[in-house]
Amino acid sequence: MDAKMINPFINATTHVLQTMAFVTSKAGKPYLKQDDVARGDVTGVIGITGETNGTIAVTFDEGSILKIVSNMFGEEMKELNHEIADAVGELTNMISGQARRELETMGKIFEAAIPSVITGKNHAITHYTDGPKIAIPFTTEGGNFTIEVCMER
Amino acid sequence: MDAKMINPFINATTHVLQTMAFVTSKAGKPYLKQDDVARGDVTGVIGITGETNGTIAVTFDEGSILKIVSNMFGEEMKELNHEIADAVGELTNMISGQARRELETMGKIFEAAIPSVITGKNHAITHYTDGPKIAIPFTTEGGNFTIEVCMER
Repeated sequence: MDAKMINPFINATTHVLQTMAFVTSKAGKPYLKQDDVARGDVTGVIGITGETNGTIAVTFDEGSILKIVSNMFGEEMKELNHEIADAVGELTNMISGQARRELETMGKIFEAAIPSVITGKNHAITHYTDGPKIAIPFTTEGGNFTIEVCMER
Repeated sequence: MDAKMINPFINATTHVLQTMAFVTSKAGKPYLKQDDVARGDVTGVIGITGETNGTIAVTFDEGSILKIVSNMFGEEMKELNHEIADAVGELTNMISGQARRELETMGKIFEAAIPSVITGKNHAITHYTDGPKIAIPFTTEGGNFTIEVCMER
């Protein structure tokens, strides 16, 4: 995977969280995911096809997503419920959509499937491909989250 | 979603489990998923695009998947580890592939993304679409699992 293909996901994520939730997120250094390290409490996952096949996963810890959704809704969210899952689905869609638009300007056309959201304390995610799996850690005021971008070779 | 589009997923699932793991699975009555009822311990999820956009999720309880993977590997698996996750990724790919081949004979062409596997005791899954979400419960000797097929309208 071309390293330049990672930037659109970083840009889309910071932009979506800033405009939808007024949350400033700071991307750390992307790394190659070697195992199931990215554990979290809520994950949005969406498949992509086209230029190549892949999957995008956004894994939030409880603190980060409660703060993000509280800001989106303008009311304090205290637990991981169905409203949080819906919000993560919407955020995943928006991040995927914005990233795909930037990728399109690079001549890389992707289609997106529909997002699924997994809720459960401390779950782990594995992506089933022999292609590279890039993880991008993000910090926010409320907590941390990780974006994983995996594509077939 | 045309109800006839569900049968290819039932056929693919029973066939893949029988041939890969010598496990007989019995499909129950499909139902419209109204909430996050399908909870499980390991889930394979794969996005599809083409005829319409969608997602397929296969959610196993611990008993069913330990038995299935034990049979696949010819050795007794006792816990949900990385090998189990890999096997679920492979099964998800095969079920998706066989179902898509049968759908193709009905003139419905889908592309598939790459599967992701979520491991974590008793997690819940929500699919973010306003289209129908069909759940198909399956029973096996070792335990139960559920296939969810969700497509945009």
